[in-house]
Amino acid sequence: MSTTEPTSRRRGRRPAGQDTRTALIEAARAVFAENGYDGATVRAIATRAGVDAAMVNHWFGGKEGLFAQAVLKLPFDPLELLAILRDGPDDELGERIVRTFITRWDGAGGGVFVALIRSVTGHEQAGHVLRDFFQKFFTALISSIGSDDVSLRMTLCASQMVGMGMIRYVAKFEPFVTEEVEVLVRAVAPTLQRYLTGDIG
Amino acid sequence: MSTTEPTSRRRGRRPAGQDTRTALIEAARAVFAENGYDGATVRAIATRAGVDAAMVNHWFGGKEGLFAQAVLKLPFDPLELLAILRDGPDDELGERIVRTFITRWDGAGGGVFVALIRSVTGHEQAGHVLRDFFQKFFTALISSIGSDDVSLRMTLCASQMVGMGMIRYVAKFEPFVTEEVEVLVRAVAPTLQRYLTGDIG
Repeated sequence: MSTTEPTSRRRGRRPAGQDTRTALIEAARAVFAENGYDGATVRAIATRAGVDAAMVNHWFGGKEGLFAQAVLKLPFDPLELLAILRDGPDDELGERIVRTFITRWDGAGGGVFVALIRSVTGHEQAGHVLRDFFQKFFTALISSIGSDDVSLRMTLCASQMVGMGMIRYVAKFEPFVTEEVEVLVRAVAPTLQRYLTGDIG
Repeated sequence: MSTTEPTSRRRGRRPAGQDTRTALIEAARAVFAENGYDGATVRAIATRAGVDAAMVNHWFGGKEGLFAQAVLKLPFDPLELLAILRDGPDDELGERIVRTFITRWDGAGGGVFVALIRSVTGHEQAGHVLRDFFQKFFTALISSIGSDDVSLRMTLCASQMVGMGMIRYVAKFEPFVTEEVEVLVRAVAPTLQRYLTGDIG
């Protein structure tokens, strides 16, 4: 388990400029693809980019943030997201997940979700990397709940979340595409909640 | 609403051989992409293929079958599938859907699902065609149940079914990939059942 902590942002200081950030993203894509999420180290990525490993924290707040922006192209910091999702009662976690993800994806115009799916359908390795990341993220998220069958529950959640994104941003089925976020939250949140804490068989 | 009926198969007779079938599939891909599922007529497809419109019924049992094989590359006849899904009590429909689709997709090695997703992510139009088809198929399937919000319910079902396929065949998250079909049926069927007949908000 990674012990990377969120670091305070120091965006005001730019020791090597935007070039460092770009070099890190390119190096990260290569190293994550070659070694998977767990196998890729911050040191290996920084070495390939030709910059100091401290630059990963500086620009991305750690390995999670670098992965999220370089590979998943998420328009947000996963550690910040984790904090938002954890902030509330366990029996409303499904609701927070659906609301937060749709709101964030909508805010980014859906394009990042399409890019993510293209990368997963195009490269076997990208699927593995996404799975490692999703597993880490959801393990961190639901570790306190104490459900059994954590692995199966996580993949059930993934199936509904990925499907939600597919229908809203990729295949674009009406009325799912234009439906109000809260209508989707009421319809889909109980599914996520059951997968997280309910009876799954 | 199409009124195409299933025809009896006459596979023994081959008036124009395998070439007719191939020509129809190619013409169908072009016409469905240009006009969508509803706008594409059997006559237009046959004309483009340079064969008699009766050949569509002969080789594919109608427009649905031609679409399923030419565009969705489904390894089964949608009308036959509809008959299987209708055969049982309404409150077990979610169970039949999950079991039947996973079994069929597994049987085809998952490759057809991957091809379907690639086609949808690669072409805006393919998403529209898939949605038209899905809508027709599910309207036919659930028309007898008498639920409200049929359109939203159908897209909710689509989100869970597409997500299920994405996680099992494309992104390949363990343990979802290797899990026994009946484990997935017990876990996912209540979701489909609620989307079809339950409280969605």
